[in-house]
Amino acid sequence: MIIDANRLKKFTANIFMACGINENEALQAADVLIRADLRGIDSHGVARLSGYVRLIEKNRVNIKPDMKIIHETPATATLDADLGLGLISAQTGMQIAIQKAKQCGTGMVAIQNSNHFGIAAYHAMLALEHDMIGMALTNASPLVAPTHSKQRMLGTNPICYAFPAGKYQPLVVDLATSTAANGKLEIAQRAGKTVPKGWIIDKDGKDTNDPSALQSGGILLPLGSGDSMAGHKGFGLSAIVDVLSAVLSGANYGPWVPPFVAFLDPIENQPGRGIGHFVAAMRVDAFRKVDEFKNHMDNWIATFKQAARVDENIPVIIPGEPEFEQEKLRSVQGIPLNSKVVEDLQSLSLQLGIPL
Amino acid sequence: MIIDANRLKKFTANIFMACGINENEALQAADVLIRADLRGIDSHGVARLSGYVRLIEKNRVNIKPDMKIIHETPATATLDADLGLGLISAQTGMQIAIQKAKQCGTGMVAIQNSNHFGIAAYHAMLALEHDMIGMALTNASPLVAPTHSKQRMLGTNPICYAFPAGKYQPLVVDLATSTAANGKLEIAQRAGKTVPKGWIIDKDGKDTNDPSALQSGGILLPLGSGDSMAGHKGFGLSAIVDVLSAVLSGANYGPWVPPFVAFLDPIENQPGRGIGHFVAAMRVDAFRKVDEFKNHMDNWIATFKQAARVDENIPVIIPGEPEFEQEKLRSVQGIPLNSKVVEDLQSLSLQLGIPL
Repeated sequence: MIIDANRLKKFTANIFMACGINENEALQAADVLIRADLRGIDSHGVARLSGYVRLIEKNRVNIKPDMKIIHETPATATLDADLGLGLISAQTGMQIAIQKAKQCGTGMVAIQNSNHFGIAAYHAMLALEHDMIGMALTNASPLVAPTHSKQRMLGTNPICYAFPAGKYQPLVVDLATSTAANGKLEIAQRAGKTVPKGWIIDKDGKDTNDPSALQSGGILLPLGSGDSMAGHKGFGLSAIVDVLSAVLSGANYGPWVPPFVAFLDPIENQPGRGIGHFVAAMRVDAFRKVDEFKNHMDNWIATFKQAARVDENIPVIIPGEPEFEQEKLRSVQGIPLNSKVVEDLQSLSLQLGIPL
Repeated sequence: MIIDANRLKKFTANIFMACGINENEALQAADVLIRADLRGIDSHGVARLSGYVRLIEKNRVNIKPDMKIIHETPATATLDADLGLGLISAQTGMQIAIQKAKQCGTGMVAIQNSNHFGIAAYHAMLALEHDMIGMALTNASPLVAPTHSKQRMLGTNPICYAFPAGKYQPLVVDLATSTAANGKLEIAQRAGKTVPKGWIIDKDGKDTNDPSALQSGGILLPLGSGDSMAGHKGFGLSAIVDVLSAVLSGANYGPWVPPFVAFLDPIENQPGRGIGHFVAAMRVDAFRKVDEFKNHMDNWIATFKQAARVDENIPVIIPGEPEFEQEKLRSVQGIPLNSKVVEDLQSLSLQLGIPL
């Protein structure tokens, strides 16, 4: 099924409204999910809508949050998201960061008591229209083992930076700090294929190429995988994300991050509140003239696109480029949904009386 | 040869002074190199002293720099290092960032027209005594290929964050964004060993396990290595470091970063000035109370140390822990130097008339 982006956004917003979220915020939340689908990040788009609805049903997401700044300096803030949707709290935090950057040059906001915020790029990219560099981090439900461990201790904890350019699209780096994302394992599993050694270990810590190992207690490996390929660096990067997002904000960290799936309960005696994010905005002109920066960004991008290729037919891909291309295409041609997602949306449609 | 750290530091400072650098700055620069040796990062310690001296001899390092802030907001600055030693300019930038953080909550400083700054951790850790989080990035001479390319376009561009803790040592993540550092290839080569596939490609872009390939035009791979293990993420991380350090500061980026070795000249028509760094300081109490943060950092560290092990005899290593242990040991027992480094120092000793 291929569906028009605006129609899908309206449906998504209506579902959120049917759950009791006000129109403004429902549209804000829907925008994040549809943007993921437009950008080709299908795992983080409407495929997750029912997941959010289930969390609302279990009162693990607050539909009427009173998000509040609980700590502040001229260039920083800590935001209590009051257990609202992360899709909204991260935007709210980013707007605060942008305002602070206007005053001070940069703004940084740590967010506690939140939920999964969708794609990091959405939030980081909010800075771009202000000629600012955007940054967004979040921790996530534990699925990844630290080096030498067979325990799920870290999420796929993404790092995203968005840099404005001139004639080129912005440079948007958005990456999970695990070697492979969960979604890639699901795709391999559906196709009956194996996955490369180094993506995952089984519950006993043994290497496996079976993508279903994750469902039977297996664990993802950090970027770099094992010792010989510097997996400790992926662990280190994930640690940075966890500490900035949660230890600094007052959210849960490490193994305590609440699961996204509503059928798993958060573990008890949590050290923090909800999930944590960390967002920042940096005015380009707090460092150098905007047009100079953009000209050099263009030169950077052009230079890397022209780098000598290993295979003449496979170009160097500038981070973010494929997503901009997908967005252009899908904005016109519509968003392709696989049958499992369509079933999921149809069942939400029936349950909440919202036509798809 | 094992040498006392203070004696080695004095020798190093005397060498810098013999090159015309004033006593204060010579001691500052020596402190960075000795700290690397104390922490066990032998590749970045006095092993590089002769490299700096050669750059001074070629006038590629200015011994009497007039470092100046050329652009500023309350929370940010851009520093022109006037081609001085990066060992000093990064400290200077970090002190500015710390002052700004005292006023605004955070401070960020982009540094242009600099040189190689030694270990990133030295600079980031300057924030710790102020109960601040420190961050240091730098670009470096091109040795790493972007994904799908066989051209040296990026340095090993490190990322470092230092977080204060309570009863534990600070959490210090300091990693090159390549899979393997140059130094690891040298060690394998000296030992006549091969290296794992994925560390390096030869000049034609083919996988190789020969560590000498780097000397015959080979190229390091970004963290994650090839396509199947998400090498594009290492490329993305390296791109973040390059842009923040150089495109934002006005330094050289990508293939234009001047080489550390004095026998290679910088390529012509450079788009920027010198090498670039990016440093930041974030006051912990700009986000939450310091003692709360430190207690949770201790809990984070204790929890990760106790994570279930794959092999009962191999513990989870907290980032920075081995370096603190080395420093403790070497502060007492002295710094072991290999014979090649000793020869190098002896030749500097003779050349400049400074007793070792």
